[in-house]
Amino acid sequence: MTLAPSHKALVPFVSVDNMMKLVHHIGIEPMLRGLADYIEADFRRWELFDKTPRIASHSEEGVIELMPTSDGEVYGFKYVNGHPKNTREGLQTVTAFGLLANVGNGYPVLLSEMTVLTALRTAATSAMVAKYLAPKGAHTMAMIGNGAQSEFQTLAMKAICGLKSVRLYDIDPAATAKAARNLRGLGLEVVSCSTPEESMEGAQIITTCTADKQYATILTDNMVGAGVHINAIGGDCPGKTELAPGVLQRSTIFVEYPEQTRIEGEIQQLSPDHPVTEMWQVINGTAKGRSHADEITLFDSVGFAIEDFSALRYVRDHIAGTDLFLDLDLLADPDDPRDLFGMLQRASTP
Amino acid sequence: MTLAPSHKALVPFVSVDNMMKLVHHIGIEPMLRGLADYIEADFRRWELFDKTPRIASHSEEGVIELMPTSDGEVYGFKYVNGHPKNTREGLQTVTAFGLLANVGNGYPVLLSEMTVLTALRTAATSAMVAKYLAPKGAHTMAMIGNGAQSEFQTLAMKAICGLKSVRLYDIDPAATAKAARNLRGLGLEVVSCSTPEESMEGAQIITTCTADKQYATILTDNMVGAGVHINAIGGDCPGKTELAPGVLQRSTIFVEYPEQTRIEGEIQQLSPDHPVTEMWQVINGTAKGRSHADEITLFDSVGFAIEDFSALRYVRDHIAGTDLFLDLDLLADPDDPRDLFGMLQRASTP
Repeated sequence: MTLAPSHKALVPFVSVDNMMKLVHHIGIEPMLRGLADYIEADFRRWELFDKTPRIASHSEEGVIELMPTSDGEVYGFKYVNGHPKNTREGLQTVTAFGLLANVGNGYPVLLSEMTVLTALRTAATSAMVAKYLAPKGAHTMAMIGNGAQSEFQTLAMKAICGLKSVRLYDIDPAATAKAARNLRGLGLEVVSCSTPEESMEGAQIITTCTADKQYATILTDNMVGAGVHINAIGGDCPGKTELAPGVLQRSTIFVEYPEQTRIEGEIQQLSPDHPVTEMWQVINGTAKGRSHADEITLFDSVGFAIEDFSALRYVRDHIAGTDLFLDLDLLADPDDPRDLFGMLQRASTP
Repeated sequence: MTLAPSHKALVPFVSVDNMMKLVHHIGIEPMLRGLADYIEADFRRWELFDKTPRIASHSEEGVIELMPTSDGEVYGFKYVNGHPKNTREGLQTVTAFGLLANVGNGYPVLLSEMTVLTALRTAATSAMVAKYLAPKGAHTMAMIGNGAQSEFQTLAMKAICGLKSVRLYDIDPAATAKAARNLRGLGLEVVSCSTPEESMEGAQIITTCTADKQYATILTDNMVGAGVHINAIGGDCPGKTELAPGVLQRSTIFVEYPEQTRIEGEIQQLSPDHPVTEMWQVINGTAKGRSHADEITLFDSVGFAIEDFSALRYVRDHIAGTDLFLDLDLLADPDDPRDLFGMLQRASTP
């Protein structure tokens, strides 16, 4: 009798190391484009997904969240934490992992790290949205906040929207120096700036991605001229915003899932009935995107479970035929499903 | 430069194989007693837990659920599915895995299979509760429904309540034969019965654990005499019950978490304000358990997140110093937390 787990009991697991190898195996820009395609495809069929605001467990130090969704055939969820103080102890502010399962029988089919993957999917989502909303021929981006997400945002805008130049600014010059160093040699003009105003000179796209948890005003009203696209990434929980209310009032606002964005996004500063457009409707052609060259478009992005679902689908499809995963013995699989105890008893005889 | 993940990035993982080894390393009865102690300790401090009904994703074929909780220092959740049709395809009806994380920094500290562990914790919970509610000197149990949970229930009642005799009944004689075979030689009298009435002869404890999803009546009113303790395990989702309303009306009813039990338990058949006692209050001495010898006590058990949390705590404490886990590279851990991109870039140079 063999006691080796059957194939039914095994769940492919993608570690951080294997995720990084997968990125280099595919190439980072092709992978960002591929992720954007998967996310765009799932935005098109947005209506058929089970949608629920994330389930958050708050503490004084931070938050732990579960983000589930399902398209009726595949179920997915992400575990993600947010602990701003972590960096002081040499830990990541955000770590994540995710899972896909078969809705038909409930068996998990993929377990994956999602710290690296979330960085990629967030950037791919921003760039996919900018493709619809940014002014025609946009080639320069102000990148305000040069933390862990900044290089991913920049490369995704290059890979998906044809960005040619990025203008970096961070309150901490060391962060700007790090981002500039990382972006060197990747085919972009990289300009380090010493004020937010300087970073916005000539920029058609403004990306804000700062980490402060308090209400902060990264973009004041008089800093933002006509015709730009603002990609606001950093405001993603109650009390965390980056844009002055005046900027919001002058912008046409696009969101992922209004029920969640009104709690977590920039628009928590506005009245609960302030008009917003759901991005999936722009993508499937049932709502208008940018309507004229002088319009300020704002993507008030907080991240949504469907984007993680798309990213996990992409990984599942792209590890096939590689050795970039490990089979985990996560599920009990007795020969007779009613005989779990017998399986346990037999395991005692070596 | 080493690219091996640091200890911060590694999460101990207990596979099914290692869980079975852990059970045999500790011994199944000592482990059931240990689990019951951890569960009892967490019932005592019930009030300080974050409690929420499970988050369910229903489909025609079944359900996938997330069950999170937190005691303020440790966060835990379980993923569990329920797909009654699975056994026809040689798959488990229920599979599960779970996670513990540090509330202070959001980092996972344990990932574990929970199919085997849930069977153990469910049995340990039943027996811990029976210790409080069953009549004094109870020595015989009717075990109605001889599926995957039945042997665990029986052994836990032996290990924790001193059970001496079990009377097995199942609508399928093959299930009874399997349970009788598995329980042979474990220090109990095992009697196979051909009717539910026969199984209840001389029993002070009646455990029902059948798998039907429809409203089923396993125990009719005239089958249940005075003075018994009913341990009702099988009713655990809307539309799934095992007891006739008349039995419920004659019983003093004890539950885990009323908000969940009123939806999923036997008491979904009663009015929403039917009185029930929360088991944690019996355990910490603020509510009465059994008050006289003729009383029928009923534990309407549906399983609650805190029991899984206790079980994961037990596993975390007991794998320490063993080799019964694998370190999983689940979390990205760059030297500089802001330099996730740099970590990814450096991974391309072998």
